[in-house]
Amino acid sequence: MAAARERMIQSAGTLLRERGLAGTSFREVLAHSGAPRGSIYHHFPDGKNQLVEEAVRAAGVVGSQMIAAGSADGDPVAALRSFIRLWGHGLEASDYEAGCPLVAVTTAASAEEPALRAAAAEAFAAWHEALAAGLREAGLSRARARRLATTILAAVEGAVILCRAEHSGQPLKDVGAELELLLHAALPAGAG
Amino acid sequence: MAAARERMIQSAGTLLRERGLAGTSFREVLAHSGAPRGSIYHHFPDGKNQLVEEAVRAAGVVGSQMIAAGSADGDPVAALRSFIRLWGHGLEASDYEAGCPLVAVTTAASAEEPALRAAAAEAFAAWHEALAAGLREAGLSRARARRLATTILAAVEGAVILCRAEHSGQPLKDVGAELELLLHAALPAGAG
Repeated sequence: MAAARERMIQSAGTLLRERGLAGTSFREVLAHSGAPRGSIYHHFPDGKNQLVEEAVRAAGVVGSQMIAAGSADGDPVAALRSFIRLWGHGLEASDYEAGCPLVAVTTAASAEEPALRAAAAEAFAAWHEALAAGLREAGLSRARARRLATTILAAVEGAVILCRAEHSGQPLKDVGAELELLLHAALPAGAG
Repeated sequence: MAAARERMIQSAGTLLRERGLAGTSFREVLAHSGAPRGSIYHHFPDGKNQLVEEAVRAAGVVGSQMIAAGSADGDPVAALRSFIRLWGHGLEASDYEAGCPLVAVTTAASAEEPALRAAAAEAFAAWHEALAAGLREAGLSRARARRLATTILAAVEGAVILCRAEHSGQPLKDVGAELELLLHAALPAGAG
């Protein structure tokens, strides 16, 4: 049963990325995960939003672990490249259909769904903190690390959207090249 | 009748920004625009997607005119500030509910709606070209202007999403400050 629950959360994450919040219905999640109809109501008695919240929370955890792993060798430029490579792979593997589940929820959750929005904000904050931690370790001030981490996160998320629109990986490559220049200029001499 | 048509297109644009593609139904557009029920089918006989396409096209035209107006005095840093101010005003005026209609369509249109996706891609391309033109006029090479314009567009779009998630204007301010540094470093001495 635990495995079925995990599978449904993963399917919800994939559907959010490819079809947005409206395209992530229980019906679609059942079809995608192959889970039996009864089990979705068993595991998510509060309905679709409970499942979406869990998928967003899972993305927050997995994403910040991936960012931390990319930062492990202490080189923020290598960490940036790793972050961009992850997104590039996701775009290519999905033929430019898969975006970001947090963006999907933020842009489509209505004001009447505050829990969904809060879950997306928390997951974004976790990714941001993972990026900022790597920058602080490389010698940047707290304030500059925060600002640069916001810029990296924003620019990469925006680039993923442009890649989907253009059906091309070029925007992500272009943004990566400019962010590297920004990082090089920001880092203390000898770092990065 | 022409005025009612315009009003419906404007309402569709507002709803796309605040509620996403799924929240931009004929029913919502009628309620928002106050247009009579019959007129929406008269003006948009091909249905909701025809209306959304027109709203996206209108955003492409208006947005690139605004970017060009912000670039009119030949200073790319001033143009960047004007672009960011526009987004900041839109976020504040809507209590951080209003994002970008092109992002809404790109993240939610399915592969079965290629015309919607193409309209969003065209509008993004118009905004990008308006940004790149200002950078070329300031002395940047064609290639660098393209890369920087992509980065500005991506980072600002991403920042708008982070602002909505956080219910705060701070991400846009932080991204604006970093983009200014990037621009200053890129511009030939004496420009900007």
